Amino acid sequence: MKLFHLSDLHIGKIVNGYEMWEDQRYVFDQILAYVREEQPDAVMIAGDIYDKAVPSAKAVTEFDEFLTELADSGTIILIISGNHDSAERLDFASSIMKKQNIYMKGTYGGEAMKVTMQDKWGDVNFYLMPFVKPSNVKNTLSDLTEEPEKESAALTYTEAMQQAVAAMQVDPGKRNVLIAHQFVVGAMRCDSEEISVGGIDQVEADVFRDFDYVALGHIHSPQNVGSEHIRYCGTPLKYSFSEAGQQKSATV
Amino acid sequence: MKLFHLSDLHIGKIVNGYEMWEDQRYVFDQILAYVREEQPDAVMIAGDIYDKAVPSAKAVTEFDEFLTELADSGTIILIISGNHDSAERLDFASSIMKKQNIYMKGTYGGEAMKVTMQDKWGDVNFYLMPFVKPSNVKNTLSDLTEEPEKESAALTYTEAMQQAVAAMQVDPGKRNVLIAHQFVVGAMRCDSEEISVGGIDQVEADVFRDFDYVALGHIHSPQNVGSEHIRYCGTPLKYSFSEAGQQKSATV
Repeated sequence: MKLFHLSDLHIGKIVNGYEMWEDQRYVFDQILAYVREEQPDAVMIAGDIYDKAVPSAKAVTEFDEFLTELADSGTIILIISGNHDSAERLDFASSIMKKQNIYMKGTYGGEAMKVTMQDKWGDVNFYLMPFVKPSNVKNTLSDLTEEPEKESAALTYTEAMQQAVAAMQVDPGKRNVLIAHQFVVGAMRCDSEEISVGGIDQVEADVFRDFDYVALGHIHSPQNVGSEHIRYCGTPLKYSFSEAGQQKSATV
Repeated sequence: MKLFHLSDLHIGKIVNGYEMWEDQRYVFDQILAYVREEQPDAVMIAGDIYDKAVPSAKAVTEFDEFLTELADSGTIILIISGNHDSAERLDFASSIMKKQNIYMKGTYGGEAMKVTMQDKWGDVNFYLMPFVKPSNVKNTLSDLTEEPEKESAALTYTEAMQQAVAAMQVDPGKRNVLIAHQFVVGAMRCDSEEISVGGIDQVEADVFRDFDYVALGHIHSPQNVGSEHIRYCGTPLKYSFSEAGQQKSATV
């Protein structure tokens, strides 16, 4: 199964006072050309579609056009919200979107969206897990904690993600892909992400051991974390000098 | 051509401290039953889908379900944003929505959305004109003012709507339907709308003379304004005692 992994489009981002419309359109056109050429079975977008929770009308139109052209290519599209997106916005009309093979998961209400695709070797299960803070997990999964008396507010990001993964009831006999937007321990970061001070928002990579591939978003530099199958794809367009530098070293 | 005219759903509205989910679902089911029975050519929703610009996840899901069932009925759906909606939200993925025969117009950037349908007598042009304030019109249509030196900020609502209608270049040789969300002079209002004090937000009905039907939203009580073909359909669910009273007198 051939998959494309994208994240952190940050449509509408202003860098050092400059709007990036032309550059963003240019990379979208490149992505679309690759999609048409390679015909992947699915395109995954691991969060941070827009740069703001209330994107401009132009940002909305830009994404609408990109998404329409992607859908027209015949590929299946799997999208989660990131910390920069309005989660509710991505849920808008999600049933209608499914009819066009676009699966979007914005808000997390206790379960990830599961999308099953088939190839000649059987099922591949995709779990769409939008960006969450521990406070998003506590309300719905508190009965799954090993220490039920523990204040949910005191859950770490790793514990919260453990619970979210437990709720997925992943079948290890199948091939499983997770799409998530989190800061995994050990990832080399850039200047352009919004990360908590002190690293309290980090998730241990071991949480993801049941997945054959983890398509991550959040960190802007492309890299594997811990193992080859846990990966940040990086931003398609560089938004800081540190990203550009790491991009270079990653491709050497 | 058979048309259904809805407006002011206000999904997620809390009335006197009570959530209205069950009542709202009940009226949606009634509407869907009528749509399946009557099979209208189009269903028009003239603004105020949600009660808030940032609706709750539940409100988003409720509308998503209603919209999906409406689309499944095979009818064409025409939607504009009202003053309670986030205009940008309704533009999200609007190209994808069109493929399901759902036409949504959220932001106004100088032109209404035109949708042409046919029946055995020829074309019917629908103009989808989202809620606007004069300040939304000034930026794009200032060259159309009869007094170009006039400060756009000083435009009245009537003048703003005049300009917006002029930009539509309506062909009087065709049948034309306008879908709009404004306060038309002479409309009898209720306690549950958000209207400006002093009536500065009123639009003269004469602005709409070129249309064969004007499907209005904004005022919650069903009524004609000036003539039979300029009409508020009213809320499907009553949100104040004054609405309920006017509803009664309107149906006598």
